Amino acid sequence: MATTAVDVKELPNAYIFVADVPGMRNTDVKVQIENDSILKISGELKRENDSTSDIKYVRVERSAGKFMRKFNLPANARIDSVSAACQDGLLTIMVPKIPPPEPYKPKTYDIQIGSCTFNT
Amino acid sequence: MATTAVDVKELPNAYIFVADVPGMRNTDVKVQIENDSILKISGELKRENDSTSDIKYVRVERSAGKFMRKFNLPANARIDSVSAACQDGLLTIMVPKIPPPEPYKPKTYDIQIGSCTFNT
Repeated sequence: MATTAVDVKELPNAYIFVADVPGMRNTDVKVQIENDSILKISGELKRENDSTSDIKYVRVERSAGKFMRKFNLPANARIDSVSAACQDGLLTIMVPKIPPPEPYKPKTYDIQIGSCTFNT
Repeated sequence: MATTAVDVKELPNAYIFVADVPGMRNTDVKVQIENDSILKISGELKRENDSTSDIKYVRVERSAGKFMRKFNLPANARIDSVSAACQDGLLTIMVPKIPPPEPYKPKTYDIQIGSCTFNT
């Protein structure tokens, strides 16, 4: 299994996940929501065009193989509006937040005070 | 200092260096040859658009900051023909090899044998 590093940051209106996926494009990586609450990122980091037997590896440091990461999403994540893009070897996923309910504001009504005409 | 993983592979006619530089482009990374024998790769892995104070990091795994790697090149590296390109978060550097000299092939000359006409 390969490893891929992920940063998670919180903005006032969204959560942003940024994953290092060097060498990968949109079609190489899969982003899913599981059980309405888990963000799953998976894919496979491959070495490039090494099908020929003429290649000899002198040094191997880069991670390769399948990877999978899962993250529990907060209760206020809007899971039906998640978007993702892969560019320059970075996978960026935006999970918008459900806006918090309007805080309760007690209202004050002015009652017109007229002459006493109540029938008692 | 950030870290960046590098693979080195040898082909019949070249050495190929592949470095993980997620989020970087051609202008963000520097490739140099030092003292006619050392390949130097340097740059800075930056976090994205974090100038606003509204961002709060919930998780930080990705490497960030300046990085520098140096590699001794073999004697048969053609240092005046090195090429490099950065795409999809991968920096690929090709160092061609100087072709080996033609192996010495002893030649055989046929000497025509005639009648003995040497003046002795």
